[in-house]
Amino acid sequence: MGDNSLGTIFRITSFGESHGNVIGIIVDGMPAGLKLDLKAIQEDLNYRKPYQSHLSTSRIEFDEVKILSGIFNGKTTGAPLCLIIENKDVDSSNYEKFKHLLRPSHVDYVMLKKYGGNADYRGSGRFSGRITAGFVMAGAVAKQVLTKVGINVFAYTKSIGNIKDESNYDFSDIDKLKEIREKSLVRAIDKTKSDKMIKLIEEIKQDKDSIGGTVKCVAIGVPVGVGGPIFNSLDAEIARAIFSIPAVRGIEFGAGFKASTMRGSEHNDPWIIENREIKTAKNDSGGIIGGISTGMPIEFTVAFKPTPSIGLPQKTVNIQTLKNERIVLKGRHDPCIVPRAVVIVEAMLAIVLVDRLLIEGKIENIIK
Amino acid sequence: MGDNSLGTIFRITSFGESHGNVIGIIVDGMPAGLKLDLKAIQEDLNYRKPYQSHLSTSRIEFDEVKILSGIFNGKTTGAPLCLIIENKDVDSSNYEKFKHLLRPSHVDYVMLKKYGGNADYRGSGRFSGRITAGFVMAGAVAKQVLTKVGINVFAYTKSIGNIKDESNYDFSDIDKLKEIREKSLVRAIDKTKSDKMIKLIEEIKQDKDSIGGTVKCVAIGVPVGVGGPIFNSLDAEIARAIFSIPAVRGIEFGAGFKASTMRGSEHNDPWIIENREIKTAKNDSGGIIGGISTGMPIEFTVAFKPTPSIGLPQKTVNIQTLKNERIVLKGRHDPCIVPRAVVIVEAMLAIVLVDRLLIEGKIENIIK
Amino acid sequence: MGDNSLGTIFRITSFGESHGNVIGIIVDGMPAGLKLDLKAIQEDLNYRKPYQSHLSTSRIEFDEVKILSGIFNGKTTGAPLCLIIENKDVDSSNYEKFKHLLRPSHVDYVMLKKYGGNADYRGSGRFSGRITAGFVMAGAVAKQVLTKVGINVFAYTKSIGNIKDESNYDFSDIDKLKEIREKSLVRAIDKTKSDKMIKLIEEIKQDKDSIGGTVKCVAIGVPVGVGGPIFNSLDAEIARAIFSIPAVRGIEFGAGFKASTMRGSEHNDPWIIENREIKTAKNDSGGIIGGISTGMPIEFTVAFKPTPSIGLPQKTVNIQTLKNERIVLKGRHDPCIVPRAVVIVEAMLAIVLVDRLLIEGKIENIIK
Amino acid sequence: MGDNSLGTIFRITSFGESHGNVIGIIVDGMPAGLKLDLKAIQEDLNYRKPYQSHLSTSRIEFDEVKILSGIFNGKTTGAPLCLIIENKDVDSSNYEKFKHLLRPSHVDYVMLKKYGGNADYRGSGRFSGRITAGFVMAGAVAKQVLTKVGINVFAYTKSIGNIKDESNYDFSDIDKLKEIREKSLVRAIDKTKSDKMIKLIEEIKQDKDSIGGTVKCVAIGVPVGVGGPIFNSLDAEIARAIFSIPAVRGIEFGAGFKASTMRGSEHNDPWIIENREIKTAKNDSGGIIGGISTGMPIEFTVAFKPTPSIGLPQKTVNIQTLKNERIVLKGRHDPCIVPRAVVIVEAMLAIVLVDRLLIEGKIENIIK
Repeated sequence: MGDNSLGTIFRITSFGESHGNVIGIIVDGMPAGLKLDLKAIQEDLNYRKPYQSHLSTSRIEFDEVKILSGIFNGKTTGAPLCLIIENKDVDSSNYEKFKHLLRPSHVDYVMLKKYGGNADYRGSGRFSGRITAGFVMAGAVAKQVLTKVGINVFAYTKSIGNIKDESNYDFSDIDKLKEIREKSLVRAIDKTKSDKMIKLIEEIKQDKDSIGGTVKCVAIGVPVGVGGPIFNSLDAEIARAIFSIPAVRGIEFGAGFKASTMRGSEHNDPWIIENREIKTAKNDSGGIIGGISTGMPIEFTVAFKPTPSIGLPQKTVNIQTLKNERIVLKGRHDPCIVPRAVVIVEAMLAIVLVDRLLIEGKIENIIK
Repeated sequence: MGDNSLGTIFRITSFGESHGNVIGIIVDGMPAGLKLDLKAIQEDLNYRKPYQSHLSTSRIEFDEVKILSGIFNGKTTGAPLCLIIENKDVDSSNYEKFKHLLRPSHVDYVMLKKYGGNADYRGSGRFSGRITAGFVMAGAVAKQVLTKVGINVFAYTKSIGNIKDESNYDFSDIDKLKEIREKSLVRAIDKTKSDKMIKLIEEIKQDKDSIGGTVKCVAIGVPVGVGGPIFNSLDAEIARAIFSIPAVRGIEFGAGFKASTMRGSEHNDPWIIENREIKTAKNDSGGIIGGISTGMPIEFTVAFKPTPSIGLPQKTVNIQTLKNERIVLKGRHDPCIVPRAVVIVEAMLAIVLVDRLLIEGKIENIIK
Repeated sequence: MGDNSLGTIFRITSFGESHGNVIGIIVDGMPAGLKLDLKAIQEDLNYRKPYQSHLSTSRIEFDEVKILSGIFNGKTTGAPLCLIIENKDVDSSNYEKFKHLLRPSHVDYVMLKKYGGNADYRGSGRFSGRITAGFVMAGAVAKQVLTKVGINVFAYTKSIGNIKDESNYDFSDIDKLKEIREKSLVRAIDKTKSDKMIKLIEEIKQDKDSIGGTVKCVAIGVPVGVGGPIFNSLDAEIARAIFSIPAVRGIEFGAGFKASTMRGSEHNDPWIIENREIKTAKNDSGGIIGGISTGMPIEFTVAFKPTPSIGLPQKTVNIQTLKNERIVLKGRHDPCIVPRAVVIVEAMLAIVLVDRLLIEGKIENIIK
Repeated sequence: MGDNSLGTIFRITSFGESHGNVIGIIVDGMPAGLKLDLKAIQEDLNYRKPYQSHLSTSRIEFDEVKILSGIFNGKTTGAPLCLIIENKDVDSSNYEKFKHLLRPSHVDYVMLKKYGGNADYRGSGRFSGRITAGFVMAGAVAKQVLTKVGINVFAYTKSIGNIKDESNYDFSDIDKLKEIREKSLVRAIDKTKSDKMIKLIEEIKQDKDSIGGTVKCVAIGVPVGVGGPIFNSLDAEIARAIFSIPAVRGIEFGAGFKASTMRGSEHNDPWIIENREIKTAKNDSGGIIGGISTGMPIEFTVAFKPTPSIGLPQKTVNIQTLKNERIVLKGRHDPCIVPRAVVIVEAMLAIVLVDRLLIEGKIENIIK
């Protein structure tokens, strides 16, 4: 592949398969001297972990982080971190059975064509959402770097199906929002919406179907001037990282797609002076203009498609007989992956920000 | 900056400023032996050129492509192409006047903070939409490479403001669609919608305001199996390239944001056999699953914000006095940049595809 | 650091420390479908392994390769390989003792300054020659890819101290040369020279000193036309990879430094026709002209400095007292690392060649 | 090719051909706010320029630098610089004549095979030494950045043929060494050796032959701790950049190849305290240990082969008839390119250092 690394100075390299020995991530470019908070990494992993509640897959994994390199006396050394979790509750039987039936909107067909039948198809192998556990570990490390420079990232479930939380939250107190989110099984903020979302997922599960949703993500504390213009603009880098998450179908910054229906006089964010600081009166730009941070919160929303694995019968093709057949999947799947994706979106943003800050020489000396 | 290159093997490097001598692009990684069609490059440039009609800016530039290197006897040599256009109708007077007033939703403030007052602010310098002329030249070259391997890219205006063309077009006859698009000043396909869009832009112009819109883009003929999984997935690479275009606020593939409201049973694309070929009955996946092309058309939609330059008075800050002021811009601006952006979106897609095909060893020998 | 990856498509990422849990390497970009020969990987590791004979360090490591990812049914899947060996015979006591004394020509001082005292200094941590075990594993994988396209790499000890083997060997029968090399404890080809080299190392060891040497390396079967001109020229890429090996002080291709004393009429390699094939009558160019392979054997020589760890008393500085002191090292060291470096040099060449062949689209289809 | 860029943050992109319109270089990643000294760029170009004296080629080029982008009010803006010189005295007649005869040790054959007959062969096209004029321009810019952080680079001719200057110069007064070098037509320091070198080149020219030589290069003022360990070690990066110069056949750092004959007790550089600063008593390490700068001068020597273009008759192959023939070249060539290469070697070192310092966050704030 050659495609499993992301970043320039802070560079992560993903490895491992859904039903292999491990899921792992190398975090290279880590500044030396950071006291690594393992508990925080584990907590982020737990946020993504399967079988957190009756709403998610019944695969039981403890996903305990292990560090194989890059740490000495509890601190980062400047050497690459190797973080892994082990795969334990592996049941490949269902995948063997469906080996010749292409699961709709799954990677079976493209994987077959790309790797000539050599890919590890068990649990979708490298294409399993499970590999994002590696992203989450790297993201948890990145967040600890960001904390040192006063940056906070936060994401929450904005919608499940048609149940949408359109509120404009005040992101100045992220800790409080985290507490609220903690209480919601679907990682939403609005209690009423959260209840409705849970109910919807329960129904969807009952129907042996699945449902999509959106995640909103913000970064607070990013100083003005971060981001390479043109090809390495901050939105370009974030978008690329977010589309690395399986099941993402769209991303929009600030007013996003709605901006395409707005007039300039309505969309433009007026500059104002507040406490002798320059900021904008509103943030339809999502904290990014010309690919560069404005100092306002970075804000974007990510669209997730419904999990392709559903229990309902579906039409498909048998690649051995080249005939149409019906397929009924029996694996352990999430009716909605959005709640588990919240921490993955945060991770990708954190990873991009640390890399960019390092490129611009804005972190190195702070940690030491 | 260090941020002005895109791509791995087929790598473009952008240079030049809005009011400098030239706008240019280096196209490295060009396969040798392609008879370069200069007329096709010029035609694409003309599609992006200012003052094509009464709907766009009154800056008059002929934007004639010149090739400084990489060509010998009319053919590519394998050496980097250097393509430039010259800036002629430069009027920097308006920018001098507003030097201390931050134009809302413009790069003035971030540019000032990032480059410490050293950036060329005339016509927004490097951040001008004019630098996309370089992207268009590189894209026109990339399209000629794609033609050799049977791939065609095509974009059109899907919406201006709230006037939307939701039709599902049959993309099997791109040439015919191009003919239809040619007749529309706004580069739309549906004649009635096109007329309404033109009328809307005329009104907006009359109001000294601006308006956003969306561009839909497709690629036909991309074989199954193209795209690096994970971080270099095809959607990730396309998204990154698209966000390099100034004014882009969102991107969605296939069903896109709508997918977030759908059930799996509705969103999943069933596999079918047609003429002994495996394809999907519909294409809500947008031709990409797991980051890899399925062989169906690659389909995505891009949201553009309204041009931030408007003639109406706006609130802002004077960075010398640090006081609030009103600003009324007088430069030459497009009330809607979407029609001119159509060919830029095509260019970015073409550039990404050529690079990826080269990485996967799927072009080299075809050209020679 | 951010510095632990090498390559573009075939990209290796190194991790692990001398006295940590593991030494590992990620091999990304591996073509799918290669039946991986684990025994061959182990054999190469054994060639680099400590305590192969009385001539090397007394640290006893079995260096058994383990594969954590990227393999399924004995074949590569196209996913990244993660290969590790474990560290067992770790004795950090000597390093604790010398913590404040800078070992001459060792990394102690630069490590301290670069990582602010956070680096894992035990056994030189990331800077230990032991991390090249990862290079060797990746190289052994690369060699298996090269075999598929008819390319063979081979290195041998050309000199230890002033004992030099200046013979021009015929590299057309690499297998035979390997057999001969196998019999030499110092990995030389000439029996008489080998005996002298062994004797010299024994003396050096007796003297508690160390000695340098050179390794010559060739690649046979590289077709004409491989190598990116200018910055990615084949010699530039090989040189960069070779200097990644600790203790390398020089590299020369073909006639090398001797070329600097030659006349063009003497140095130029005349083109000839042999069996209707174009080749050169001699190979002072080392198989590379203008950064591109000529089809002749790629030939280069690498200079290794003497191991800085010696048992003799040396002058140095105590970084706590900032006073001059004497240091007498007691760790387990090689009097000459050249014999163990032979397989590392081969590895780096193989890794560079596979990456470049993939970039040029010259491998992908052969393996599938 | 895709191979014409070097560097990560400070990234140069080379374009242009020997007999095309221009030779150019893009310098991306340039910090904003540097008052660019054009005269210094021109002076470096003059140092590389053809026909400086009777010792070099008779091609007359003025090589006047022009800046197409990246500068505003005499200062760098943070945008990419585009620097070009024009080709004027182009005489392609000799190349047409020899089109079917492969010039020995020239790129004709590999170029033909790599680009399928499409490469611009006039004056060796992209493979001409003339493209290094671009390197020199970028290097002159890089040197101005280095000056801001107290780093000075300097190179001189160490040997021509067997006339070698083995003196160990004191590099603490670079300005004085530059003055001395200025007076030597061959860019040597030792007056007696310089005279002998000039005489040798005159003889060689008389004989219609050519001769090789070596260039020694140093950097003063590089602080301790610069350089990525392992794959991006400072010596690895420098070596890669140096091998990008046509005609380079070898590089050695510090004691270099001689180190391979030394004992550790002899080669090791003892740490000492001098004026309360830690340094080494001698510098056989060449200022780099473990790939990281020690604070001592960076020192390396580069071997150049003799120019392959000679006036004497040579054996070769006619690729049309596939028969052996004799070739007598009549182009305008340097009997020894070493004197003109001195400033190119400096340029490559400067470029590598600026990139690495930017990666490590050690420049950005100094310039602003």
